[in-house]
Amino acid sequence: MVETVKEYLLNKQYKELKAFLNDANEADIAECLNDLDQEELAIVFRLLNKDEAADIFARMDDDTQERMVEILSDKEVSSIISKMYVDDAADLIEELPANLVTKVLKNTSIEKRKQINEILKYPEDSAGSIMTTEYIALDEDDTVKDAFDNIRKTGLKKETVYTAYIIDKQRHLLGVTTVKDLMMEDYSCSIKNVMEENVITVNTTDDQEAVAKMFDKYDFLALPVIDSENRLVGIVTVDDALDVLSEESEEDFEKMAAMAPSEDEYLKESVWDQYKNRIVWLLVLMLSSIVTGKIISSYENAFAAVPILVSFIPMIMDTGGNCGSQASTMIIRALATDEISPKDIFKVWWKEIRIALLVGATLAIVNGGRIALQYNNIVLGTVIGLTLIFTAVLAKSLGCILPILAKQLKLDPAYMASPMITTMVDACSLVIFFNVALALINI
Amino acid sequence: MVETVKEYLLNKQYKELKAFLNDANEADIAECLNDLDQEELAIVFRLLNKDEAADIFARMDDDTQERMVEILSDKEVSSIISKMYVDDAADLIEELPANLVTKVLKNTSIEKRKQINEILKYPEDSAGSIMTTEYIALDEDDTVKDAFDNIRKTGLKKETVYTAYIIDKQRHLLGVTTVKDLMMEDYSCSIKNVMEENVITVNTTDDQEAVAKMFDKYDFLALPVIDSENRLVGIVTVDDALDVLSEESEEDFEKMAAMAPSEDEYLKESVWDQYKNRIVWLLVLMLSSIVTGKIISSYENAFAAVPILVSFIPMIMDTGGNCGSQASTMIIRALATDEISPKDIFKVWWKEIRIALLVGATLAIVNGGRIALQYNNIVLGTVIGLTLIFTAVLAKSLGCILPILAKQLKLDPAYMASPMITTMVDACSLVIFFNVALALINI
Repeated sequence: MVETVKEYLLNKQYKELKAFLNDANEADIAECLNDLDQEELAIVFRLLNKDEAADIFARMDDDTQERMVEILSDKEVSSIISKMYVDDAADLIEELPANLVTKVLKNTSIEKRKQINEILKYPEDSAGSIMTTEYIALDEDDTVKDAFDNIRKTGLKKETVYTAYIIDKQRHLLGVTTVKDLMMEDYSCSIKNVMEENVITVNTTDDQEAVAKMFDKYDFLALPVIDSENRLVGIVTVDDALDVLSEESEEDFEKMAAMAPSEDEYLKESVWDQYKNRIVWLLVLMLSSIVTGKIISSYENAFAAVPILVSFIPMIMDTGGNCGSQASTMIIRALATDEISPKDIFKVWWKEIRIALLVGATLAIVNGGRIALQYNNIVLGTVIGLTLIFTAVLAKSLGCILPILAKQLKLDPAYMASPMITTMVDACSLVIFFNVALALINI
Repeated sequence: MVETVKEYLLNKQYKELKAFLNDANEADIAECLNDLDQEELAIVFRLLNKDEAADIFARMDDDTQERMVEILSDKEVSSIISKMYVDDAADLIEELPANLVTKVLKNTSIEKRKQINEILKYPEDSAGSIMTTEYIALDEDDTVKDAFDNIRKTGLKKETVYTAYIIDKQRHLLGVTTVKDLMMEDYSCSIKNVMEENVITVNTTDDQEAVAKMFDKYDFLALPVIDSENRLVGIVTVDDALDVLSEESEEDFEKMAAMAPSEDEYLKESVWDQYKNRIVWLLVLMLSSIVTGKIISSYENAFAAVPILVSFIPMIMDTGGNCGSQASTMIIRALATDEISPKDIFKVWWKEIRIALLVGATLAIVNGGRIALQYNNIVLGTVIGLTLIFTAVLAKSLGCILPILAKQLKLDPAYMASPMITTMVDACSLVIFFNVALALINI
């Protein structure tokens, strides 16, 4: 699409471009604008349908939004902000540099500014920070007809109109209803008789990931957010839940590969920022593996006497690391998706021990057997075989216990992933290896 | 919740239990039923509100569904299936063992059986396999009033009523409209004038992950699925997209930890199945690291002359592996989320080289410096420092190039993750290490 737009621009076919943009989807236009330079951006944005411009603006990348705010006149900023949903406006304010925040806020109505501040006051990653304060509110004495009139009148400005909340004068949440339910009822029916009173709610301070998982479980289109006094303060919509789920799993992928999580796209994040995200864990893990080196040094006599032992070090370290990573990945994910909780620790451990014995026995037979045959040395094969079995049990034990302990200690289990587990297992597996070797081989 | 239910059961307070279940949410009840034994299940399920029973059944785990089908009479099965959405019914058929499939199908109406087969014929993981064939279809000559009447009449049986599709006699897709848009229009207005003609569609054979990502991008509640002749065959709803996104990222986590992906929950999957998912990659990687062992053997003279060199092997292997995993994780995820594509390979590589130089230099200064001081041996410190820099560049290069190459070759980049990269980097980093050592130290 961006090629087509650039071609229209090059040929100055603005009328055709306008018609083309008019037919295109907002999300596609936003994606295309991200790839234009400052000058092109200014032209294209002004050709957009005024009603769609705010929606397209809300869908642009953070830095394209920033570039747009720089270009636009005060009047244009004001028009866009007034049409933006308040949660999108709050996101914008959060990402902009200070000088542009000023430009945006001075072009925002007092009412909207108040709503934006309402959202900004909640901690990052809380339900409050991703909610919108625009929703359909009904009175319990309304009729179905009142409800439809209300939705028709105010609906265009709300992010979702399909779920409506029934509140009292103090904004306490009394019930919930949906347009689908309302459509099945008589116009004269009272909302009180239609509404569902057992409302599933989230609290403003709930973690956004927990909120997103509730959408997955309950298949709702929106969830009401209440404060500590059961007053409705906003709603979270399913599209926000989708964003949160993607964002949180990206974060976990990065943490599990020993990186500080970042929110930027790979190509957009600078080399320096990527360096900073990666170096801390690399240093920590590098310095930790000095311990493993010390262990090797202390068995210098063993490998001086039987030099071939050294050549098995990488195989034992790698296999131990892989066994541990498999277990820790399974457990970290099972904790993240609430399939297991810390109280399951012994059940999980017992399971991993049995898996480790099967895995270890298979590896021992294959590799121990190979070594016994290749070197015509049954003792050496036995040393490797036993080491693999002990290492598998140890690696899978650490791999399942450490994430659960982290969770219990309110740390993020995702950090107990492959890199950390591998470093620990390395040291232990070499101790096992050299001790088995010393016990079975006459050195 | 399950404790409360069990207590009611124990005290035989069935009336109270029925009232309790009546007030509870369907998803919560389904979760609770998963934890009951066969006998409890039979009692509780029969206490459920008949209208909600099918919905609760659809939300239960695969194996609870299986246990239910075993318990229920033909008549009960028939009643549930008739109320289930056709995509949920198709999922059920897919997961049940053959004897129970027969029981279900003989209690399913011919019409529904036809619809189920329509879905089952599409390949697993395709848009066709996750769609439902129940949606609101309108004629372009309908008025807004006709549309509402249609929704009111048929809506209860449709998974979503908020998006309606306008089709011609041959089921070609002409346009789309939403209840929100319809509510803003006059009753007498023709659908033709309200509908959006530029419809974003997916094809039956499109990958489910790509479809799920479209929901994230466009914020739709439903997407129409068309066949190769632009005929509407079904719709995918946003709740399915949420399921697919979770499922696909779990799969990637498992693949990236060198496991065959599984769909079962951790605690429910047998030890034997877990063993099978894990052992293949462990064997492959273990046998690959024999190469690394061979490399070490070939430098036997070097570490016989300078035994301290051996003690650096774990540190170099681990650091190389971690550097490589960081890069590969970033790239695998960036490929999965379409932030980069194979054509970006040189841009990405150049970026990783610069990051690697910064990272390598830092590691070299810290650890090379430490070694130079500790052993009072500048040459040894230099060997370690240079090895770390070269290893970082090599590891990050492999970590970014291999996943991109895999994608280019239509393989799954997720397998080019930590375990695979670590095994490759191990061998290379040791070659670097011993060669730098041989070049700088007089052996």
